[in-house]
Amino acid sequence: MTVPLTGVIPPVCTPMTPGHEVDAASLVRLVDHLLEGGVHGLFVLGSSSEAAYLTGAQRALVLETVAGHVGGRVPVLAGVIDMTTPRVLEHARVAVAAGADALVATAPFYTRTHPAEIRDHFRILAERAGLPVYAYDLPVSVHTKLSADLLLELAAEGALAGVKDSSGDDGAMRQVILRRPPGFSVLTGSELTVDAALWMGADGVVPGLGNVDPHGYVRLVAAAARGDWAAAREEQERLVRLFEIVRVGGPRMGASSAGLGAFKAALFLRGVIGHPVTAPPQIPLNADEHARIGKLLAAVGLLVRGTGT
Amino acid sequence: MTVPLTGVIPPVCTPMTPGHEVDAASLVRLVDHLLEGGVHGLFVLGSSSEAAYLTGAQRALVLETVAGHVGGRVPVLAGVIDMTTPRVLEHARVAVAAGADALVATAPFYTRTHPAEIRDHFRILAERAGLPVYAYDLPVSVHTKLSADLLLELAAEGALAGVKDSSGDDGAMRQVILRRPPGFSVLTGSELTVDAALWMGADGVVPGLGNVDPHGYVRLVAAAARGDWAAAREEQERLVRLFEIVRVGGPRMGASSAGLGAFKAALFLRGVIGHPVTAPPQIPLNADEHARIGKLLAAVGLLVRGTGT
Amino acid sequence: MTVPLTGVIPPVCTPMTPGHEVDAASLVRLVDHLLEGGVHGLFVLGSSSEAAYLTGAQRALVLETVAGHVGGRVPVLAGVIDMTTPRVLEHARVAVAAGADALVATAPFYTRTHPAEIRDHFRILAERAGLPVYAYDLPVSVHTKLSADLLLELAAEGALAGVKDSSGDDGAMRQVILRRPPGFSVLTGSELTVDAALWMGADGVVPGLGNVDPHGYVRLVAAAARGDWAAAREEQERLVRLFEIVRVGGPRMGASSAGLGAFKAALFLRGVIGHPVTAPPQIPLNADEHARIGKLLAAVGLLVRGTGT
Amino acid sequence: MTVPLTGVIPPVCTPMTPGHEVDAASLVRLVDHLLEGGVHGLFVLGSSSEAAYLTGAQRALVLETVAGHVGGRVPVLAGVIDMTTPRVLEHARVAVAAGADALVATAPFYTRTHPAEIRDHFRILAERAGLPVYAYDLPVSVHTKLSADLLLELAAEGALAGVKDSSGDDGAMRQVILRRPPGFSVLTGSELTVDAALWMGADGVVPGLGNVDPHGYVRLVAAAARGDWAAAREEQERLVRLFEIVRVGGPRMGASSAGLGAFKAALFLRGVIGHPVTAPPQIPLNADEHARIGKLLAAVGLLVRGTGT
Repeated sequence: MTVPLTGVIPPVCTPMTPGHEVDAASLVRLVDHLLEGGVHGLFVLGSSSEAAYLTGAQRALVLETVAGHVGGRVPVLAGVIDMTTPRVLEHARVAVAAGADALVATAPFYTRTHPAEIRDHFRILAERAGLPVYAYDLPVSVHTKLSADLLLELAAEGALAGVKDSSGDDGAMRQVILRRPPGFSVLTGSELTVDAALWMGADGVVPGLGNVDPHGYVRLVAAAARGDWAAAREEQERLVRLFEIVRVGGPRMGASSAGLGAFKAALFLRGVIGHPVTAPPQIPLNADEHARIGKLLAAVGLLVRGTGT
Repeated sequence: MTVPLTGVIPPVCTPMTPGHEVDAASLVRLVDHLLEGGVHGLFVLGSSSEAAYLTGAQRALVLETVAGHVGGRVPVLAGVIDMTTPRVLEHARVAVAAGADALVATAPFYTRTHPAEIRDHFRILAERAGLPVYAYDLPVSVHTKLSADLLLELAAEGALAGVKDSSGDDGAMRQVILRRPPGFSVLTGSELTVDAALWMGADGVVPGLGNVDPHGYVRLVAAAARGDWAAAREEQERLVRLFEIVRVGGPRMGASSAGLGAFKAALFLRGVIGHPVTAPPQIPLNADEHARIGKLLAAVGLLVRGTGT
Repeated sequence: MTVPLTGVIPPVCTPMTPGHEVDAASLVRLVDHLLEGGVHGLFVLGSSSEAAYLTGAQRALVLETVAGHVGGRVPVLAGVIDMTTPRVLEHARVAVAAGADALVATAPFYTRTHPAEIRDHFRILAERAGLPVYAYDLPVSVHTKLSADLLLELAAEGALAGVKDSSGDDGAMRQVILRRPPGFSVLTGSELTVDAALWMGADGVVPGLGNVDPHGYVRLVAAAARGDWAAAREEQERLVRLFEIVRVGGPRMGASSAGLGAFKAALFLRGVIGHPVTAPPQIPLNADEHARIGKLLAAVGLLVRGTGT
Repeated sequence: MTVPLTGVIPPVCTPMTPGHEVDAASLVRLVDHLLEGGVHGLFVLGSSSEAAYLTGAQRALVLETVAGHVGGRVPVLAGVIDMTTPRVLEHARVAVAAGADALVATAPFYTRTHPAEIRDHFRILAERAGLPVYAYDLPVSVHTKLSADLLLELAAEGALAGVKDSSGDDGAMRQVILRRPPGFSVLTGSELTVDAALWMGADGVVPGLGNVDPHGYVRLVAAAARGDWAAAREEQERLVRLFEIVRVGGPRMGASSAGLGAFKAALFLRGVIGHPVTAPPQIPLNADEHARIGKLLAAVGLLVRGTGT
């Protein structure tokens, strides 16, 4: 793995069969779709992968399928999402065995954890996990924000290789960017402000929406890399319009269902995956909502299977 | 199992070795301590059991150890604490195999879940888990409150056998008590208001502090059962004083560490378990804090090992 | 004022004209209704009084109207609800001038305030306000909980005369009850658990629902005072059923509108106030919802104007 | 007033005497300091103005002092921060009388308000306030986020002239920017990402830190306006370093005290205001903390009074 990690590293959706088993064939097609789109790495078993809904065996299958199919062409980061250190370490062992290149871990959740304990959590992971650890800052799920000071302390001592910042707090992210040690990677998880994050010095992006349109995010990052910021912005604004798909599910379901359901519906409509199925208890999108997603795809120039649009 | 479930059903702490493995010998002694105290059931793998810190293998070991040692003398409820339905169902399969009598499940967490999805979560568990399901209402961990309406709807259709209410919202609990169908069990998880909860019609209590002093909670419930409410209150007020042990850790650690650490320190000081060890990344209580806990135990008349008090 | 303050002290609704001015005539009738019901004090300008919606002039008018009409027959507590100490002190000056007997103040809100600053807030109020100060613990509005330790520290130094506990956390309230100095008054704001609160040692209750049925709460407190706890519980359970009126507005409006609208609709239906009007931007209840409230009133034996029920 | 409002519109601090009265002489000097720095408007009575701590008379004095001294040279926006519509309208009347050019209002707070009620709140303000209304999106204080949909709906019907977005959610802000009607002004309140916000299409910035260094923010905005984004970024990064002053107060005080205290300490050290005093109950910064702030000022090239640095 290059240090720091850079570019587009989408959090790979986990295609499922109608019976809610991992659809490995679709997963392989999705990986091909992403690699063909030019992404620079893959993040499996994150929130957008429905890691929270996958059993241990399903998680292992996903990781083995992706790592095996990728075969080292790009780095594979493995989410180790769980409540506390011992359980996260258990996922780390599976990830190491499956050939992951790095781990992505949140702060503890469900428990009521002191900042000093969060720090210890990452220190223990760093010592024992056997792979570089990226912090996953996701307050909407974890209900704590990783402070810039904490991230920088852990970066300075080498416990963290980087952060995936899905907090939406770009001011705090910028403080990390400006004060971090060399090699510490800052990746934004905010799909709608990637040009801005790269402008500030972020190294890359982990966009859930990148499942649907990896080419768009790759174009965005490439434009920024060559200094063509106007092109980067234009691409980002197109992706902002595409992001409307996550609002189609509306208030009749949770934000997880609406977002993950939209990504999978779009991947299904684009012909990448076999079934637009999300794990229970998520409410599925209906036919009308699928049609609206199809129109939003078409409006940004994405072909939809069987429609000729 | 009797219906509704009644009495004192402590959430059993999980003793650990200094290496953070399950200390099965201490766990058996703890179960004996609780049974000797007269408790009416045992709840394993709840929050007070550090379920959030236990690996899958450790959870299974705890459950098998307790269920095996109890041998049907009292009902054993198994927590199936995890983020979403598929992962909870996996824990349920382990619990069924280990011989648990019922399951205790929270709403989904980490994910952003709609009330209709929470309802579906419990419905799916009820259909597939193979054991009666108790809802675990714990907003401090799960970040959603189970409404009285939701609980009553699930109770009416038979999807839930009862609720362990650790929300602290006794007004809402009372609405459930007054409107529930026959056989639906309401258990309070609020250790400091058990007499009041019983007075309102609750069926029992799941007190973390009951690990330390099961005799006290059993006396409380027995006094209430025979209508001697003054005795129940006197016992409860004594237990309120004992509950001060959870505040000894103070602001230098999280609320989980301070509470679970205090219970384990007290069990160690009383000679029940071999080591006052909690799982990482929880900050341990120090010697001074142990001494203060010892004094609080003595002040309510609990013998402390080796001190003669 | 007797110390500690005891009994039923309803937070007096503020009747309004269709043009959203204070309806002083209805307010006087409401005070008479409450005094006739036997209440032991009146709390004006609290949350149930829509204090958050009243201008300075309206607040003063309400306070002068009530204090003038009461004429010392019962203590009048004045809410001084505002964001920070200087603004609260300004309300305190008005309250002193209007003849209030005591003040009720929350922690600062809107600002991000440290616990030491919350402590200073109450200390400054105690020094400068010129009347006894009751703390108003209302996390649902203020977004901080007043800890038992903070309340007890302020009680010990004489800065607080008591607390109106609307936190719903009866365990914490009990810790205050058991450790408070003599004369410090603990009043519950939880309408559904008054018998339990009195059982634990609370001195009284500040029930929003007491506007609608002061007689019921007075009977409840009287039964508890004479040791007839079964009668207290029976009355409380009847009031729990009556409390269903606050749920009629349902999800189409905020909890403030649904609750305050229901109290005012009930007072209108009972013939106490002239208009069931709440302040903007609260959504008003409609005719169908009024009818449902009427049925709920009738079901607990309250006469509704013009219906003969 | 030009439409849309653009440029640097600092939220003007409210200098205070040691006795916590408005220090009008210092306020005039601060306004001169800001105008000399080239700002394009002034926002008085916002959060950074300690509006939450000012009495009605103090608020009026501040507004009259600033509006009178500015004399139309730049637009003056007046915060009308209060809990609900009727109280906000009362502040609006004062603002109109004092000659403000526009109003800035939050969603209701303290009360529990439905989104439809928040919408009605802004509609009523628009109809009755007599000045253009800017929405102030400040979830950290108000505990609700104004959704992009709500802002756009109110923008489309002409009820809002713009938004001051202090939510930190730049993804949502971008959705507003891309979908807003002509003339609707989007101002960021996030001091650390102004270059990025302008890049996305925001019209200006309302930076609390702009009190301390208006020249810096004006240079930043000017650089962006002429397309010299590298210079804008360099200036922004310098201001990120300056922003470290808000962290000097650290965990011994609230975030309000630490931030507002730092701004005032810096203004005092720079010789702009007479006293580094904040309103009670905010904990004041001490001499050591003042010294650290002085060093941070010097490090970014700001002269400190009497030190020659």
